[in-house]
Amino acid sequence: MSSNSTVNDVRTGRPADPSRGVLRPLGIGEVTITGGFLGRLQQRNHDVSLSHIEYWLEHEGWLGNFDAAVAGRLPEARRGREFSDTEVYKLLEALAWEYGRTLDPEINDRFERIAARVVAAQEPDGYLNTNFGRPGQAARYSDLEWGHELYSFGHLIQAGVARARTEGEDDFVRAVCRAADHVCDMFGQEGIQSVCGHPEIEPALVELYRVTGERRYLEQARLFVERRGHQTLADINYGRSYFQDDVPVREAEVLRGHAVRATYLSAGATDVAVETDDEDLLHALRRQWDVTIARRTYITGGMGSRHQDEGFSEDFVLPADRAYSETCAGVGSIMFSWRLLLASGDARYADLIERTLYNVIATSPSQDGKRFFYVNTLHLRELGAEPDAERAVGRAESTLRAPWFGVSCCPTNLARTFASLDGYVASVDTTGVQLHQFIPAVVRTQLPDGRTVALKVKTDYPRDGRIVVRNGGESVGAWTLSVRVPNWANGAGGVTVDGSAGSVDSDGYVRIYRDFQPGDTVDVTFPMEPRFTVADPRVDAVRGCVAVERGPEVFCLESVDTPGNVHVDLVRVDDSVAPREEDDAVVVSVRPLMLPNSELAWPYAGRRAGADGDGPDDGEAHEVALRPYHAWGNRGPTTMRIWLPTDGT
Amino acid sequence: MSSNSTVNDVRTGRPADPSRGVLRPLGIGEVTITGGFLGRLQQRNHDVSLSHIEYWLEHEGWLGNFDAAVAGRLPEARRGREFSDTEVYKLLEALAWEYGRTLDPEINDRFERIAARVVAAQEPDGYLNTNFGRPGQAARYSDLEWGHELYSFGHLIQAGVARARTEGEDDFVRAVCRAADHVCDMFGQEGIQSVCGHPEIEPALVELYRVTGERRYLEQARLFVERRGHQTLADINYGRSYFQDDVPVREAEVLRGHAVRATYLSAGATDVAVETDDEDLLHALRRQWDVTIARRTYITGGMGSRHQDEGFSEDFVLPADRAYSETCAGVGSIMFSWRLLLASGDARYADLIERTLYNVIATSPSQDGKRFFYVNTLHLRELGAEPDAERAVGRAESTLRAPWFGVSCCPTNLARTFASLDGYVASVDTTGVQLHQFIPAVVRTQLPDGRTVALKVKTDYPRDGRIVVRNGGESVGAWTLSVRVPNWANGAGGVTVDGSAGSVDSDGYVRIYRDFQPGDTVDVTFPMEPRFTVADPRVDAVRGCVAVERGPEVFCLESVDTPGNVHVDLVRVDDSVAPREEDDAVVVSVRPLMLPNSELAWPYAGRRAGADGDGPDDGEAHEVALRPYHAWGNRGPTTMRIWLPTDGT
Repeated sequence: MSSNSTVNDVRTGRPADPSRGVLRPLGIGEVTITGGFLGRLQQRNHDVSLSHIEYWLEHEGWLGNFDAAVAGRLPEARRGREFSDTEVYKLLEALAWEYGRTLDPEINDRFERIAARVVAAQEPDGYLNTNFGRPGQAARYSDLEWGHELYSFGHLIQAGVARARTEGEDDFVRAVCRAADHVCDMFGQEGIQSVCGHPEIEPALVELYRVTGERRYLEQARLFVERRGHQTLADINYGRSYFQDDVPVREAEVLRGHAVRATYLSAGATDVAVETDDEDLLHALRRQWDVTIARRTYITGGMGSRHQDEGFSEDFVLPADRAYSETCAGVGSIMFSWRLLLASGDARYADLIERTLYNVIATSPSQDGKRFFYVNTLHLRELGAEPDAERAVGRAESTLRAPWFGVSCCPTNLARTFASLDGYVASVDTTGVQLHQFIPAVVRTQLPDGRTVALKVKTDYPRDGRIVVRNGGESVGAWTLSVRVPNWANGAGGVTVDGSAGSVDSDGYVRIYRDFQPGDTVDVTFPMEPRFTVADPRVDAVRGCVAVERGPEVFCLESVDTPGNVHVDLVRVDDSVAPREEDDAVVVSVRPLMLPNSELAWPYAGRRAGADGDGPDDGEAHEVALRPYHAWGNRGPTTMRIWLPTDGT
Repeated sequence: MSSNSTVNDVRTGRPADPSRGVLRPLGIGEVTITGGFLGRLQQRNHDVSLSHIEYWLEHEGWLGNFDAAVAGRLPEARRGREFSDTEVYKLLEALAWEYGRTLDPEINDRFERIAARVVAAQEPDGYLNTNFGRPGQAARYSDLEWGHELYSFGHLIQAGVARARTEGEDDFVRAVCRAADHVCDMFGQEGIQSVCGHPEIEPALVELYRVTGERRYLEQARLFVERRGHQTLADINYGRSYFQDDVPVREAEVLRGHAVRATYLSAGATDVAVETDDEDLLHALRRQWDVTIARRTYITGGMGSRHQDEGFSEDFVLPADRAYSETCAGVGSIMFSWRLLLASGDARYADLIERTLYNVIATSPSQDGKRFFYVNTLHLRELGAEPDAERAVGRAESTLRAPWFGVSCCPTNLARTFASLDGYVASVDTTGVQLHQFIPAVVRTQLPDGRTVALKVKTDYPRDGRIVVRNGGESVGAWTLSVRVPNWANGAGGVTVDGSAGSVDSDGYVRIYRDFQPGDTVDVTFPMEPRFTVADPRVDAVRGCVAVERGPEVFCLESVDTPGNVHVDLVRVDDSVAPREEDDAVVVSVRPLMLPNSELAWPYAGRRAGADGDGPDDGEAHEVALRPYHAWGNRGPTTMRIWLPTDGT
């Protein structure tokens, strides 16, 4: 530990723990997910993915780098990219949350075994990185643009925070504080006047401040946030917007540059704004979120339109077929949105979290939990090949899920998200409890006035729109249960509470104020009819197309679901026929797309002014089944698309 | 010279000179462009751009690298990227053609001065490259994937070929032959069994064979073409398709990977196919051209959809707003198409050349000839900034034309294309003369049977659709004048010859068979009404949009042409009103795009089945002027788009 700090909130188990804000988060000790769609993904993470990740970290030698450091075999023996240490740290963070959630001693053993190997490599002054500073390696902090050293410290610290919040102070947590102290020594007011090319240290230091009460960590995070945007990093081909060093955080209009960097930075800046009571900064971040959601976000919640720099593009540049939508940007977006939700109580942030959970986070892993999408495209035109199960692949090259990547940030990011998912379900404020995500769960917590409330949430969401919340505690006087009404339901109408039309507050919640008696239930139902969705007409890429959604899930067409395995680009939807549910699919009516007469002609043809487009009666109509996007690509090579051209009527 | 070869076709001045094929090209000694739109660009190249390029080559030190090599100051003094030598070679090639075209002694002086500096740096064994092989530099041929050594030799040889065809054998041409001999020594049957990561040596060696008759050069080019596609280059992040080493040339289905690499290779492979009478290879290349044109080419003729790898994307992935369409890929496409035109006599190749000349080649340079687009996007959403006139910029970052680039292949590629443009105007065969491009020009040549024909072409094309061809020679008996009928005119109908409806042959030419008397004229008129054009419905990026074309020119909307400088993304075209000509612009009727009510809402909204789209009567109609795409961006920062949404009727 830092000499004057102690771990002061052992086992709250909150993924983020702001000291102020409209809502107070609940920790994984207060909420237990008991099943459901996302619960099953969480369990698969426990049963399969955590071991899969550890196997690959050993296999690729990234864990071995720490042993090599201890044995003096670096740099010769080093394996992996400059930031490979962070995958070990993110696995540690995932194991910490998972142990906190399950108290599974085998998980704890794994944490301690790996943590010991990491701590052994720490240098006496707190520095820890297997890629820098030894003879034959680049000097410490000699490449802030690309070296990822502070990014690595950030993930190390996040692992320590998770450990402190689920188990308490131990050797690993103390090592993490030494590392944080080292960072403050090096980059403080009088230190190196720059920032890291990849944000992450910012939220990490604020969280460590929240764990320890050590203000130095908060002050350092504040310094990093304020320094960014002043061009202290060198210019690069992608421009300084790539690492958000183009414009100061509080002056920026919108998220830009590398999407993971942008969302991590925004999460950390929100933490700083909340802890330093900086309303101006918080306002700027909320505004940036608004603009980013309105103009730079895919229907899936995915962020990042460009392969070149894994980055945001300009407003409304959201191509489906070159969508990047990196899994890690989904994680970063949830981090950012969750912090704004706690700060503001505005359900729109929880809406985006839901959308991202069901359509990015749930999409990345394969059904067996051993393969992952790094990139979550919305449209695949060429049949992909199944990647080799025993070989790591490049990041965005595989068209189906791969077991591991040369840059393998996504599997570990998913692991820590699933392991801490309980913490995103609910919150409390002075009025009562807010239910943000609809997952079967048990909630037991105290309201700020000390009253203990206990709830049990039953639902088959998103398969079904009914959420039943049962009071599992005693009567403690009146309080308010607030249930988020998803923005998609609001648009569709038909929300009912206990069988009557629900009244939705302006901030997006339906509120039930009552002196709940033991066994009392509240029964909220959202309308789950499948629906057509169209995009803002400025999104050129999907003009003239509809998407099909049902509840929070986006659906897609896969060629494996078409008669004769027809390419998904060769059909158009008859949007005069409403989509209808059939088993676990949604069925729409389609016709063949009208193609030019010649297959190999110049593809741009004259059109007389006023000439009709393709008529709706061309070609024979038939029905095809769309399935949830998160399930796509689990049945071998297929073409796929979310946005379907309409027949032009 | 190679000991057993001599320059055998001095001063034919043909940019490519196949020994067989359906058509025989005419050299720049047989065709003289005398003005017109493209003639003015050629003159500006002579008056401004050639000096501009030489200034920057000195300024950036890329010319100085050769002096530094002679003085033993490498590698310390070296400036620029690994391939910077080639910009010097391409300037030499441009100067050679320009001297051949104009016989301007000042141009010849510049050629000789620069050539002497280059030749001085050649090593005794013929090797010549300022970036490899000296103490402290990487070893020769140690990085075939990225070193660009054979690519550099290729451009050196092309400069030598241009010199030999316009002036004859000299020290430079002899140095070039020594370099080619060195390449054959190193990479022959028993030599290094691989290829260069960037094709270019292939067409260069065939052309040098054509100049010298030295079969060894042809054989080496054939070897390079046959070796490619057998994975002799290392795998890279982009995949081996990036440098076309994924599939053998004769087995490929379509152009893929880096677009400049793909088109250069295809040009060289066509040369090999023609000279070795390899019908199978030629057929494969023609098929690849067909597929590439039908599925992977922009309406401008531009190629390359991806910034990430400057490459082709999958079929029909042609986003307007992330179009790469590199200027050099336009040059490569013309090289490839010209060779297929000569081999086959099919006008479709000349059609693509025309489209590329007017919409890529003419677009890149600024109106003052001192700035260039490296990337030719079809849609600019954000107002760009004018790049600094005294600073080289990255390649694709500038939104307006820049004076020079860190990778500055495009300005020199334009220069050699403009300087040799006379060679692409016409050809001959046993029937007579074919006129492919409509540029005011004088043609004087011999038919294969020895008869001399002389023609004068008068036209204000593309401003006007009338082409008048006057016989400037004596009566020599009957022969056929074939005038290409552009594919766009064919679609529109209305081609007239001497006032009557023209009859177009299946290969795309209107033919006039006559014993032309002195002063006889043929008067061909193409219909120049502006027209709406729509794309194949598989091009998702421009669904629901129209482009406006007039003759071979694609038009675009710039915000500087809208009342109040409205963003080009905020209008839709009323496509029931035909576009009409007004001065040098085309006028269309537009209405405001229907936007969501809230500026910062989630941009994906529900749509009832069967609900109407935006009605045509929403918003007030007004007229806006579209101007030729090649002229865009010459009036300061502006947004721009070619494809305009229609009003959905």
